[in-house]
Amino acid sequence: MNVPETEFKPRFAFERRIFFGDCDQLGIAFTGRITNFALEAIETFWDDLLSGRGWLFLLTERNTAMPFVSMDLQFHAPVKAGANLACEVYVVHVGESSVGLKVVGRQHDLICFECETKSVFRDASTFGKVKIESSIRQILLAEVGSENQTVS
Amino acid sequence: MNVPETEFKPRFAFERRIFFGDCDQLGIAFTGRITNFALEAIETFWDDLLSGRGWLFLLTERNTAMPFVSMDLQFHAPVKAGANLACEVYVVHVGESSVGLKVVGRQHDLICFECETKSVFRDASTFGKVKIESSIRQILLAEVGSENQTVS
Amino acid sequence: MNVPETEFKPRFAFERRIFFGDCDQLGIAFTGRITNFALEAIETFWDDLLSGRGWLFLLTERNTAMPFVSMDLQFHAPVKAGANLACEVYVVHVGESSVGLKVVGRQHDLICFECETKSVFRDASTFGKVKIESSIRQILLAEVGSENQTVS
Amino acid sequence: MNVPETEFKPRFAFERRIFFGDCDQLGIAFTGRITNFALEAIETFWDDLLSGRGWLFLLTERNTAMPFVSMDLQFHAPVKAGANLACEVYVVHVGESSVGLKVVGRQHDLICFECETKSVFRDASTFGKVKIESSIRQILLAEVGSENQTVS
Repeated sequence: MNVPETEFKPRFAFERRIFFGDCDQLGIAFTGRITNFALEAIETFWDDLLSGRGWLFLLTERNTAMPFVSMDLQFHAPVKAGANLACEVYVVHVGESSVGLKVVGRQHDLICFECETKSVFRDASTFGKVKIESSIRQILLAEVGSENQTVS
Repeated sequence: MNVPETEFKPRFAFERRIFFGDCDQLGIAFTGRITNFALEAIETFWDDLLSGRGWLFLLTERNTAMPFVSMDLQFHAPVKAGANLACEVYVVHVGESSVGLKVVGRQHDLICFECETKSVFRDASTFGKVKIESSIRQILLAEVGSENQTVS
Repeated sequence: MNVPETEFKPRFAFERRIFFGDCDQLGIAFTGRITNFALEAIETFWDDLLSGRGWLFLLTERNTAMPFVSMDLQFHAPVKAGANLACEVYVVHVGESSVGLKVVGRQHDLICFECETKSVFRDASTFGKVKIESSIRQILLAEVGSENQTVS
Repeated sequence: MNVPETEFKPRFAFERRIFFGDCDQLGIAFTGRITNFALEAIETFWDDLLSGRGWLFLLTERNTAMPFVSMDLQFHAPVKAGANLACEVYVVHVGESSVGLKVVGRQHDLICFECETKSVFRDASTFGKVKIESSIRQILLAEVGSENQTVS
């Protein structure tokens, strides 16, 4: 299921400083670092959403991984050193085995980048696709907005 | 101008080892590292294409930067430690101020990921859009395939 | 001047999460990442000590850099994923142009690593050594403990 | 056993390009990246020395890890973008369970940094110290220079 962007509600924001070492010769965050900011936000989001039972728990206790299938980044404005970056994370799609998240990175009120990702839940040993555990799927669906829910 | 994918000819491949430190607990390259592999390939591609006058030269000698506008990644197979990764780089779009590149990352004969990027040439001080220098644009257009050239 | 370790007082602690992407196949922070944790703590320390006028301000407003001359790391225990790391930063030496800092990285009450660094204040253009600005030097000396102060 | 520096023979050099993304606002490699250059050289050294049976093989096939106990870096000159870095690796100490390596990083003929490391061979599950496998220890001892060999 998909929800129109206008219905996105800020569910979660992860804030971090932009360090000197994140920035390149132009004094702005190197593109390769921006992916990591989005990934830090997503990892933190999962732990927040699942009460600490995110990536690491699922991998070590459930032998489940959720590798990315795609990651689409749009860069709107440079991410600058010496200021904090806040990354909001939204659930935009929930499938049987897949989940779509959107990250919006802001400095002050300026949107610096947007990142849309799709991940698939997989058995960490065989890397075969697995269904999202029912309790997790319910939590994800509740994130998207009840009116628009459709099972994909 | 855009060219159909079937006409892509391998122009350039950048090979590098996948290190232990590139990999996460699953023993595969961390998603955040894969962006960096693509960026290393693109930086090397520019220096190859422009005889050493790539990113660093353009920035320090021409005050021109070409920050990314977008970067779309599709992950097809895990990038594994202990093997080399070869990244091919193709020119897929040439505009007045913008260029589109595609990176295909392979280990042995397996395509691990594809990455499509769009960059805009900018004045490094004002960050205003600038036209691609004519000599560079000619080189880029020659990369795409003459029959399909259209000025965007 | 140098102070015995027993007199170190926690001046400043920088806390950050250890992310999945910081860790290697052993599930512990990769050695190469640990340097970055120490550097993040040191950068944050300077801004805290100088009321926001740390690395970035000194570089852009004073054309002063303070590159590292040495960095000695001792690894006592693995830094683990899924827990926070707190890095304390101490001033251990103040010279005319140089400063020595010590970083102690802890998870819970366990010391994971110690890092001693020496930096020299330099003109960012010529890279020539410069004297530490008097007001900054006073602040640094006050950090070390008044009894032991000796000018090196 | 230790050997005087004058007896070091270049055993192995690992060369890599310094990328734009390795460098900070000063246009030189960020200190936190330099550790990674040394680690890449060391990882490649082990595979070269042990015919491909380095870190990854020892971990996955022998359940042996060799985490670092210490890493001492001295920075002599900035590592610059747009040029290659060559890292020589030398064995400087061989103990029952520990090994000391030295990395010398050069650009052209200039020594940019030196890095001395000590690692301990450990069971990857229990993290308990283990003796270096005899065949590996013989290879290491042969690296140091036969006259000076003493068992530590």
